[in-house]
Amino acid sequence: MHPFSQFDRHNRLQHLITLEGLSSDQICDLLDRAEHYVRGPGQIPARSQALDGITVGNIFTEPSTRTRSSFELAARRLGGEVINLEIMLSSRVKGETILDTIYTLQAMAVDVFVIRDAEPGVGQFVATHVDDHVSVLSAGEAHLSHPTQGLLDALTIRQHKGSFADQVVAVVGDIRHSRVARSAYQVFRALNVGELRIVAPDGLMPDAGEMPGAVRFDTLEKGIAGADVIMMLRIQKERMQDAAIPEQSDYFARWGLTKNRLKLAKPNAIVMHPGPMNRDVEIASEVADGPQSVILKQVANGVAIRMAVLETVVANRKARQSSP
Amino acid sequence: MHPFSQFDRHNRLQHLITLEGLSSDQICDLLDRAEHYVRGPGQIPARSQALDGITVGNIFTEPSTRTRSSFELAARRLGGEVINLEIMLSSRVKGETILDTIYTLQAMAVDVFVIRDAEPGVGQFVATHVDDHVSVLSAGEAHLSHPTQGLLDALTIRQHKGSFADQVVAVVGDIRHSRVARSAYQVFRALNVGELRIVAPDGLMPDAGEMPGAVRFDTLEKGIAGADVIMMLRIQKERMQDAAIPEQSDYFARWGLTKNRLKLAKPNAIVMHPGPMNRDVEIASEVADGPQSVILKQVANGVAIRMAVLETVVANRKARQSSP
Amino acid sequence: MHPFSQFDRHNRLQHLITLEGLSSDQICDLLDRAEHYVRGPGQIPARSQALDGITVGNIFTEPSTRTRSSFELAARRLGGEVINLEIMLSSRVKGETILDTIYTLQAMAVDVFVIRDAEPGVGQFVATHVDDHVSVLSAGEAHLSHPTQGLLDALTIRQHKGSFADQVVAVVGDIRHSRVARSAYQVFRALNVGELRIVAPDGLMPDAGEMPGAVRFDTLEKGIAGADVIMMLRIQKERMQDAAIPEQSDYFARWGLTKNRLKLAKPNAIVMHPGPMNRDVEIASEVADGPQSVILKQVANGVAIRMAVLETVVANRKARQSSP
Repeated sequence: MHPFSQFDRHNRLQHLITLEGLSSDQICDLLDRAEHYVRGPGQIPARSQALDGITVGNIFTEPSTRTRSSFELAARRLGGEVINLEIMLSSRVKGETILDTIYTLQAMAVDVFVIRDAEPGVGQFVATHVDDHVSVLSAGEAHLSHPTQGLLDALTIRQHKGSFADQVVAVVGDIRHSRVARSAYQVFRALNVGELRIVAPDGLMPDAGEMPGAVRFDTLEKGIAGADVIMMLRIQKERMQDAAIPEQSDYFARWGLTKNRLKLAKPNAIVMHPGPMNRDVEIASEVADGPQSVILKQVANGVAIRMAVLETVVANRKARQSSP
Repeated sequence: MHPFSQFDRHNRLQHLITLEGLSSDQICDLLDRAEHYVRGPGQIPARSQALDGITVGNIFTEPSTRTRSSFELAARRLGGEVINLEIMLSSRVKGETILDTIYTLQAMAVDVFVIRDAEPGVGQFVATHVDDHVSVLSAGEAHLSHPTQGLLDALTIRQHKGSFADQVVAVVGDIRHSRVARSAYQVFRALNVGELRIVAPDGLMPDAGEMPGAVRFDTLEKGIAGADVIMMLRIQKERMQDAAIPEQSDYFARWGLTKNRLKLAKPNAIVMHPGPMNRDVEIASEVADGPQSVILKQVANGVAIRMAVLETVVANRKARQSSP
Repeated sequence: MHPFSQFDRHNRLQHLITLEGLSSDQICDLLDRAEHYVRGPGQIPARSQALDGITVGNIFTEPSTRTRSSFELAARRLGGEVINLEIMLSSRVKGETILDTIYTLQAMAVDVFVIRDAEPGVGQFVATHVDDHVSVLSAGEAHLSHPTQGLLDALTIRQHKGSFADQVVAVVGDIRHSRVARSAYQVFRALNVGELRIVAPDGLMPDAGEMPGAVRFDTLEKGIAGADVIMMLRIQKERMQDAAIPEQSDYFARWGLTKNRLKLAKPNAIVMHPGPMNRDVEIASEVADGPQSVILKQVANGVAIRMAVLETVVANRKARQSSP
């Protein structure tokens, strides 16, 4: 075991568990690299041999998530081998046994671990224990972190808006329980977004001390007024059984992004959502499918971002091995 | 959304949801192409790079079906990337969310969808909504359609009998609930099979108006007398609890294809079954494993047919893109 | 069907269901070949195109076992195609239907079957029925056999000890129910290990007639005294509910391999375990992670051994086909 750092001794990215601590330059390098992998609809996807000889272990608790597919396609299009494992690392009773599973795979020359687990801390725990040549990438950690989602969100905004400094970005909905919101907050702060707003009903707002610098709004209308970017979050149906939160139809009535409400934002505002959407709960179908929606561009950018991250950590590993 | 057609604006095959509407020429083109991919037992399977750069999404409700494996191997042997997803599209509450799943995968550059779903209409629904460069292939739709099975059946008959016009083909068993029988009916009608017989107990016969032109028989003995091809269907055990249908042992006694009964057919008649078989229910083991059985040839032809269909829709897409 | 033999008419290995009957030379050939595929941590794994054009069917009853992953990576790194199937062959009611599944896959040009099933005899049954060009490899058979585990254990010992003739090897724990122990016994006898000890509490010792030539010990202390190699076995928690077996904490107290007890063995003794370990039940963490442990080397060797076995049976098939 060694202290946790996402960066290796050359200060290059080895793991990606959180966006906390990444500089604007480091983030922009990843976005630039991802841009090389972006293709339009109907084009043959970008490919390379950057992961030739590398085996990626996709460790997810459920078989069919969009993030799992996105990482799998990213790795394979870079010429990597992928092995999918459906296990919940954290359920294996004792801390050591998480490591037994990881060390077993590492001994089989699985060199990159992509991990989604129900418990917080699993990715960081694994990252502090793997060999020097191994990388650990988070594919979503509890309510805390979803770093590749944050990067793809940033890439999508940059594609549509060019820069970050003069943008008003509103993150709307269940911010309190959202790893997407936390990674968005981190990446937007690092990139010096002009104004970052968090917009939520009281029960879904994070604690007072969290997310310093973000401006808080308690109505959708005020929160999106004049915004350049509106990022809607998925709300879990269970939340709406909480007394403090409006029920489903009430939620849509007060917090759903409709075509009419969207007029409060800038005319060329873009609408984002990490998916899967609850249509007509947090977002009206006419908005989700409307001309301002960039939701499917986010999905396409997701593959490109994951390719960029995979390529980066594997290139950094080679640099580490050739000048130890 | 656009009106449903399996053919693109150049009148080339884009989707394959049903065999209804395919001409004899179009079917024979697919059989000819499949013939290139047929190899005998013990040979290295045929391969090509026809699907290089193409990602195929295999969307099945269960993990382990022979049809899923057949499509997966077909796509990979053509150099395609395959992603397996175990989801039931139709269970996702609202129509829109089927499309959210499909559009998400389409945004990841999944260019061909192979779909088996419990509900009828899913394949056609998806086909009317995907982008121009995307193809949708049915891997079995409720009791309605199983087009690649129909094609592999036709290929198998052609290999053994040379032509269709002078053949007597008897389809036997649970025709009422069988997608295999419906696709067989469509392909055999298009290919002008000499005489097409449907042979079933009363409760398993399709409605009176269905399958015009097919000759109906209500005993196995009369139905297979003088036949060149006998296609047995799988009977679901649940059916036999229906009062109108004989129970399992009675079913075999009256409707099982035995060696003795097979003598009623032409001496060189071939015996087919789509699998999985209920041995000694609809077919005696001595027949299933006997010299007239071509059941395993059907399986081998299945991979070749799926390779032909995949190659065709991908070639047609390229033609569409180069002359829009 | 033909009589069961693992060897083809040229007396070359076709199937690997058990290590029973393999000569020392045949085993050493496999170990030598495996040695070519061994790489150290952080190295790109060895690859070849020895399985180009070959499809391997991985038939396991559960999705996520280390052995499944090890075989999958081995086959892919040799350029083979892998199809994973989660089915329990033996649960399919009648003997014939195991074969229907196998023959169906064989017709799709699946040329190598890797099988783990709950029932004994499935691998041998399949091997007696497949075509001449097909191989069947056991990935663990009930309590009876786990041949690639036996080979990787032998390889690990040879790497650390050089030879077998002068070694004292102690197999410790639940020998009675262990396929690992039975394959170890077979391989060590074939290789003429100097002294082979089986060390277990009474209820976990095999029947009196089994494992002739092995020396029996009924305490851990006596069993490992002076040993060069200590192979600990996993104990199933269910066993410890048996009256004759100590309970979990008692088990560790009397049968757990601790640092102190390890001092009874030779100073350079190596400690092995097939995994997954019950830490602090049969083995103390300080031993599992200590300098004498070669447990992760066993895992790495497992991939190399499976590559060697796959390459061997495919090479032998080609030899068979070119001189029939």
